Amino acid sequence: MDFKGLDILNGYQFTNQQLNHIMNTAAQYEKRVKAGEVIRDLEGMVVATLFFEPSTRTRLSFEGAINRTGAKCISMADAKSSSSAKGETTADTIRTVDGYVDVIVMRHPEKGSAQQAADAAVHPVINGGDGAGQHPTQALLDIYTMRKEKGHIGGQTITFLGDLKYGRTVHSLGYFMQQLGNKMIFASPDSLKMPEEITKDLRARGADIVETTDVKAALSQSDFVYVTRVQRERFDDLADYEKCKGSYVVNMELLKSAKKDITILHPLPRVDEIALEVDDYAGAAYFRQAHNGMYLRMALLGLVTGRA
Amino acid sequence: MDFKGLDILNGYQFTNQQLNHIMNTAAQYEKRVKAGEVIRDLEGMVVATLFFEPSTRTRLSFEGAINRTGAKCISMADAKSSSSAKGETTADTIRTVDGYVDVIVMRHPEKGSAQQAADAAVHPVINGGDGAGQHPTQALLDIYTMRKEKGHIGGQTITFLGDLKYGRTVHSLGYFMQQLGNKMIFASPDSLKMPEEITKDLRARGADIVETTDVKAALSQSDFVYVTRVQRERFDDLADYEKCKGSYVVNMELLKSAKKDITILHPLPRVDEIALEVDDYAGAAYFRQAHNGMYLRMALLGLVTGRA
Amino acid sequence: MDFKGLDILNGYQFTNQQLNHIMNTAAQYEKRVKAGEVIRDLEGMVVATLFFEPSTRTRLSFEGAINRTGAKCISMADAKSSSSAKGETTADTIRTVDGYVDVIVMRHPEKGSAQQAADAAVHPVINGGDGAGQHPTQALLDIYTMRKEKGHIGGQTITFLGDLKYGRTVHSLGYFMQQLGNKMIFASPDSLKMPEEITKDLRARGADIVETTDVKAALSQSDFVYVTRVQRERFDDLADYEKCKGSYVVNMELLKSAKKDITILHPLPRVDEIALEVDDYAGAAYFRQAHNGMYLRMALLGLVTGRA
Repeated sequence: MDFKGLDILNGYQFTNQQLNHIMNTAAQYEKRVKAGEVIRDLEGMVVATLFFEPSTRTRLSFEGAINRTGAKCISMADAKSSSSAKGETTADTIRTVDGYVDVIVMRHPEKGSAQQAADAAVHPVINGGDGAGQHPTQALLDIYTMRKEKGHIGGQTITFLGDLKYGRTVHSLGYFMQQLGNKMIFASPDSLKMPEEITKDLRARGADIVETTDVKAALSQSDFVYVTRVQRERFDDLADYEKCKGSYVVNMELLKSAKKDITILHPLPRVDEIALEVDDYAGAAYFRQAHNGMYLRMALLGLVTGRA
Repeated sequence: MDFKGLDILNGYQFTNQQLNHIMNTAAQYEKRVKAGEVIRDLEGMVVATLFFEPSTRTRLSFEGAINRTGAKCISMADAKSSSSAKGETTADTIRTVDGYVDVIVMRHPEKGSAQQAADAAVHPVINGGDGAGQHPTQALLDIYTMRKEKGHIGGQTITFLGDLKYGRTVHSLGYFMQQLGNKMIFASPDSLKMPEEITKDLRARGADIVETTDVKAALSQSDFVYVTRVQRERFDDLADYEKCKGSYVVNMELLKSAKKDITILHPLPRVDEIALEVDDYAGAAYFRQAHNGMYLRMALLGLVTGRA
Repeated sequence: MDFKGLDILNGYQFTNQQLNHIMNTAAQYEKRVKAGEVIRDLEGMVVATLFFEPSTRTRLSFEGAINRTGAKCISMADAKSSSSAKGETTADTIRTVDGYVDVIVMRHPEKGSAQQAADAAVHPVINGGDGAGQHPTQALLDIYTMRKEKGHIGGQTITFLGDLKYGRTVHSLGYFMQQLGNKMIFASPDSLKMPEEITKDLRARGADIVETTDVKAALSQSDFVYVTRVQRERFDDLADYEKCKGSYVVNMELLKSAKKDITILHPLPRVDEIALEVDDYAGAAYFRQAHNGMYLRMALLGLVTGRA
């Protein structure tokens, strides 16, 4: 299976077999890092992290991955003082930087910009999030985490909890769950339901989906819960917000209604949608999930350079 | 003596024997760097520099140290666009980054945040300054410099000069001087005296302290003078400021009253509290002091990772 | 020929023989990078990139070069939160950082600051642009590109096109063209002509210069055209701007009047002064020119450290 030269632009581009190969590669890197190995797979290579929109968390995860594979990093943490501020197109910026590096990691506020970058660059482009578009490395690390936490992935049930209307993460993850054969429960306030075109599209692809406002019932049947934050500013009617906000906070009381050994996922940062007391719960996987992001990104770097 | 896994949170945590071991380790690194050795002690390791409050000077010194020990660095130079700006707690940020790295260096505007970070992280945390709290690597590089300049440390006299009320650096250093058996002279305007609770506490620990406004007399008895800046905005009464500002500027004229071979220290940046003409004076150690910061930080990195 | 320890402050400092040695060194690095060699020439060295004025493009090119030669990089991307913001002189900042590194790359908004930095530092300083002063690495990469595109440099004709009044780049490049024996055509609107003192000075040094507003005639005789942007805000009279703006845009229609195989250069970023359709033209060298910047900077790093 050859990923050399491949752009990583969205999550939908992989077959189950390819996904499996990415996960296995990530697992290998995790093992080697934890064994304290000095990894030189990408020695001599330089990778650019171009953040046209700042995101310290995603940037540090990628830069950890770049350094851990033995590559070196050049970084633009913020586009404010860059050439794009002087009117340069993204394609021109990419064509320039492309000459300095072996891989380009890009985050950009505009949907479709990752594809533009990939068209402009000779070297592989990894999409670190393009606005309302895709954020494939997040989705891949999510499923890597699910597989690792349960030992396998597929034939399980996952509840997507909270704001499903605006959450880019859950939109992408839905397609992966369908592809991997997981049942989905969408548990949200009525005003923050999963967009109908997505639900419809997922069902057309054969997904098994239940929509509900009954969080306890949802959790009682779920192997995973993927938590997102319900933000006050998303509500037109504040009374609506007050009514439902408490129902979408995961705490030890709510977990009493959950299936035994439920795994709790969250893309982070969390604010108050998961109580601190839950951090000590065995199935609280959200920090492990963040850490997995580095191994997953190492795998992608190794694969697209043909060095893994 | 085992420092492996240790957090470096404050200066008070070390015995004289431990301080001595840190200094010796720094001296070793200084020797190896100056000999042009390619140091690989921390090869394969990644260190995060998380500056929740920007400080380019301290960050570059740490990043020089990280690179010189053979480690690699991932960096947040400014927290403005980070997850903490989105409401994430410092503990959550630390727990996330902890999964990418082997050591965390943190600077934060809030007192006590370094301890919080150490509680959250599995890996060692080095405090790069936590607001009104501690800045242990500054104090350690100060005493490393004193030892290097004079060949030993202890049984000497040091004048703390200038603004002793607001200077975090001199507060911490006072405790080290007491611990190491140095006599202290506090020479400051009346309105910028060392806080009474610190002077009292130091005396209770056995410190030999003289307070004075007579700068010349102080310098005539001192082996070291530690200069801090007297800032206009610290004075309630501008007439007071005008009266005393000239007395706290170190120039060649003032040095005529000083003990021969007095060593001049300053945490930098200096503005006008040391005249440029003093830079060529043999005892003007403040740039050497800044350079020593890198060796001292290399020592701490080597020690807490068990690689030195 | 020994460049070890040399500061690179301006373009005028080199003999033709030295320029030739720099170009040859850059060509060697280009070859080694393209062969995928893991270059260790500067292994163990640390280089600072101090950008007192942000310039992402120039910084990334230097940092690519630093990493590709095997050195490591510590970076200040923006001086806003630095010690200079606290009133420190540039010389003091440089003297401090000088203790952490083997080479200093500096960009600064003030003319003459690169010389000040070189005076303050023990280690070599490479000027990455000092305001209205010099930007020697840009001029050197320009002539490296000219040599590479045509196989040699000298005895050719180059048109400088567009805004020649405010363009620092073309001011510097004019001196190189004279030194290397190239004829120059200055094609610009009347209000944006090359400053008379420069034209006069170049002619006094023996340069062959023609000034014109006839772009087509200029291009018909030129081996190279160096394009700069004509900006509306440079014109006192908007009618003047409207009249001439179209004449200084390079597109395929204009290239019909140009000499066959003309090489098109541009320091980038371009906005609309070169039409996108030109990007596929064989002589469109501006992205290759940007890429050459990295090899040229690798050469300078290798030469001033004595490792190339």
